Amino acid sequence: MTQKIEKITPRDENFSQWYTDVVRNAGLIDYGPVKGTMIFKPYGYAIWENIQNILDKEFKKVGVNNVYFPLLIPASLFNKEKDHIDGFAPEVATVTKVGDKQLAEDLYIRPTSEVLMAEHFAKEVKSYRDLPLIYNQWVNVMRWEKTTRPFLRTSEFLWQEGHTVHSSSDEARDFTLKILDIYKKFATEVLLLPVISGRKTEKEKFAGAKETYTIESLMHDGQSLQAGTSHFFADNFAKAFDIKFQNKNQEEEFAYSSSWGVSTRLIGAIIMTHSDDYGLVIPSKISPVQVQIININNSEEVESRSNAIFEELSQSYRVYIDRSEKSFGYKISEAEIRGVPIRIEVGPRDLANGVVTVSRRDIKSKVSIKFDDIKSYIDEQIVEFDRNIYQIALDNRINRTSKADSITEYQDILNTKQGFVLVPFCGDITCENDIKEKTQTNSRCIPDDVEQVKSNCFNCKKESNYMVYFARSY
Amino acid sequence: MTQKIEKITPRDENFSQWYTDVVRNAGLIDYGPVKGTMIFKPYGYAIWENIQNILDKEFKKVGVNNVYFPLLIPASLFNKEKDHIDGFAPEVATVTKVGDKQLAEDLYIRPTSEVLMAEHFAKEVKSYRDLPLIYNQWVNVMRWEKTTRPFLRTSEFLWQEGHTVHSSSDEARDFTLKILDIYKKFATEVLLLPVISGRKTEKEKFAGAKETYTIESLMHDGQSLQAGTSHFFADNFAKAFDIKFQNKNQEEEFAYSSSWGVSTRLIGAIIMTHSDDYGLVIPSKISPVQVQIININNSEEVESRSNAIFEELSQSYRVYIDRSEKSFGYKISEAEIRGVPIRIEVGPRDLANGVVTVSRRDIKSKVSIKFDDIKSYIDEQIVEFDRNIYQIALDNRINRTSKADSITEYQDILNTKQGFVLVPFCGDITCENDIKEKTQTNSRCIPDDVEQVKSNCFNCKKESNYMVYFARSY
Repeated sequence: MTQKIEKITPRDENFSQWYTDVVRNAGLIDYGPVKGTMIFKPYGYAIWENIQNILDKEFKKVGVNNVYFPLLIPASLFNKEKDHIDGFAPEVATVTKVGDKQLAEDLYIRPTSEVLMAEHFAKEVKSYRDLPLIYNQWVNVMRWEKTTRPFLRTSEFLWQEGHTVHSSSDEARDFTLKILDIYKKFATEVLLLPVISGRKTEKEKFAGAKETYTIESLMHDGQSLQAGTSHFFADNFAKAFDIKFQNKNQEEEFAYSSSWGVSTRLIGAIIMTHSDDYGLVIPSKISPVQVQIININNSEEVESRSNAIFEELSQSYRVYIDRSEKSFGYKISEAEIRGVPIRIEVGPRDLANGVVTVSRRDIKSKVSIKFDDIKSYIDEQIVEFDRNIYQIALDNRINRTSKADSITEYQDILNTKQGFVLVPFCGDITCENDIKEKTQTNSRCIPDDVEQVKSNCFNCKKESNYMVYFARSY
Repeated sequence: MTQKIEKITPRDENFSQWYTDVVRNAGLIDYGPVKGTMIFKPYGYAIWENIQNILDKEFKKVGVNNVYFPLLIPASLFNKEKDHIDGFAPEVATVTKVGDKQLAEDLYIRPTSEVLMAEHFAKEVKSYRDLPLIYNQWVNVMRWEKTTRPFLRTSEFLWQEGHTVHSSSDEARDFTLKILDIYKKFATEVLLLPVISGRKTEKEKFAGAKETYTIESLMHDGQSLQAGTSHFFADNFAKAFDIKFQNKNQEEEFAYSSSWGVSTRLIGAIIMTHSDDYGLVIPSKISPVQVQIININNSEEVESRSNAIFEELSQSYRVYIDRSEKSFGYKISEAEIRGVPIRIEVGPRDLANGVVTVSRRDIKSKVSIKFDDIKSYIDEQIVEFDRNIYQIALDNRINRTSKADSITEYQDILNTKQGFVLVPFCGDITCENDIKEKTQTNSRCIPDDVEQVKSNCFNCKKESNYMVYFARSY
């Protein structure tokens, strides 16, 4: 029997309140003293650590080097790339003094580090022999936000930002896409988010980029969330920051660059995709606790059996035994609300029968398993758990994906099942601004796995060049 | 034959210039665009990553949980603990606006996070059952500095800061010392710094702390460097921030706290302890490259042998083959300047004899080793390398440690061999200020392994309570 620790609003009653309730009650975060900032408590931060560890290994396999660049950017440097500054100016936090002393120049807290990297690259790069440079950093950044929500939109957030510079445009573009592939594979296989991927439209691409690629994820409520982006700059930044190299023909040439990032938003995406009315459901590969053992009492036989199970499973999994003075029921609720994939209950009655009770968080099963079979049962159930929650998310995405040929048809879908809506689109910024005004939605991407036929734009009726997904989004 | 890549000033000619030359030429850093900030290039950051990985595992063994707290602290919150704010006020970078909009309250970029943690703890802690809370974060902090040097003193630096809260004063103090032990063991066994440890005097303890413990390391030039500190606050912060809990007797009690940290200064300490006129010498456990293979040419036999060696050694070590177009001599110089512990040269003449040439960075040996013996030879030489550089540092510390009974005797030592000077000291702040004025030096610690006899203060001649190490310091 499970008792709820605090009331969680049912997901289908009020999705937004449900999200807030889950985040708070699962012990992921606390709010910071400055509006729009948050504290990652141990359980919340452990999810991010797991994301970092897995993704960092993938980056290193393709030659990424970690670095650390300064937090503060002089205003004069930031203003060098006009499109870029226009994109960020209203939301940069600005340091103007130290102690009582006014500074000679305003310093911006990085909203992203393209300009710092570009200036460094201009000094480092002399010859094609110095290229490519493939840098990444795991850092905090700030973008002041009016309305904030934990993980999804906070004034300060954690992310990784990759920045590369290459000796040919093709190589830079290939690397941009290689990272997109890593993101897609990681989202699909580790976070179990059935993302779609593609290119951003002119309006939605990153400030200063030539092309922006994205993975887009569909939340349980039918809204989209941008889960990762990879930007190809061609030589835009090289021209603004004078990054030149001598090529093999001994001619000077501007270099080609990319940047790419994922952030702690991913944790919001995981919650809104997999969790339910009982709290979090966390994909096993990033779950801080993969198996939780709960003892019904602290008799010697229970303790010794649960210790033996702990020892055995700890070889393969992150296992936790809650030894606090909390009640048995409370511990079960807490394991549920925290989304632990597998729970093992060890009690005297079961022990007399040579079994323990194993539950899976997603299907709330309760199965008696013999001592010798525990490890192999869990090996199998963890795989099944991951497979099942991915399938549920995929079904939701498939069920909520539609097509529309006109703006009214699109609006009807937004008012009913929402989700990704595939439309023929002209690609013009003015037309997309018009759509935004009519529907408060943006294009998500020009998908890479959909046939790009010519037709008439669903909004302006001019010739359309692409099939594009539009959706309401976070 | 080695050729120097750029000129490094000899260490004994000008220690300070030697340090700057080594840091720059080894490719560790670049200077940032804001004065006093620096860029960690891949090789420099990799050292920090290795430090993080090893230390983080040690922390987790004693129950430390990683968290992330916000970068910005409202001025009103920071001012709650008077001693604390007095210690940091002149050097805090302050955010006053976002975009063009003035903020209602100044926000400080964290110089350290005691007050944020304390405020959070006040909300979280209700009962003794909630305790202890043992938090740590790996983050950037800022303290504006007038004169800066890479790693040693920079306006922004990276560190870990641990913050704990406990239900008894003894437990908090024990944890403070447990961390000091971890730091000491890590410094000694991993960084190969023969540190001394002890308690700080009244004058030198941390702003707001009841007791500060420290590990102090002696640089090659005879100056001391504080390598890590652990602070016991008793209930000082709990009283300022109202952190109360109900104890087992159901009485309200103020909680007890500690904080502790090491920073990227450690990299400066490693350089100034172990490196030489040829560049860096990096302890093997944190060296980004432990074994570097350099091919004399790119013939098929050389390539195939060096690949085989790479495969074999990569099972146990971080191995690197430099495949760039640089010359053989340049590659050797670069491996040297970067402090790679073991270098293997693979060339056709050696191969004909069934051997390769193995060199150790510290003693500049060159030994022919048969193919089958490479792995076991390197296993042995890496241990010897670490042992030897530790011994050199220890000898330096022992040779430079003295005693003095008067201020003139102390000044004589400062003018000759420097190093740690053990003196009887009264412990008064006024007396220590006077010593500082006379000698521009501070006390380093009241050592925990020296008999604490009563005598007369070496400066003021009043009764002394401790034996204390004084030294010139970074």
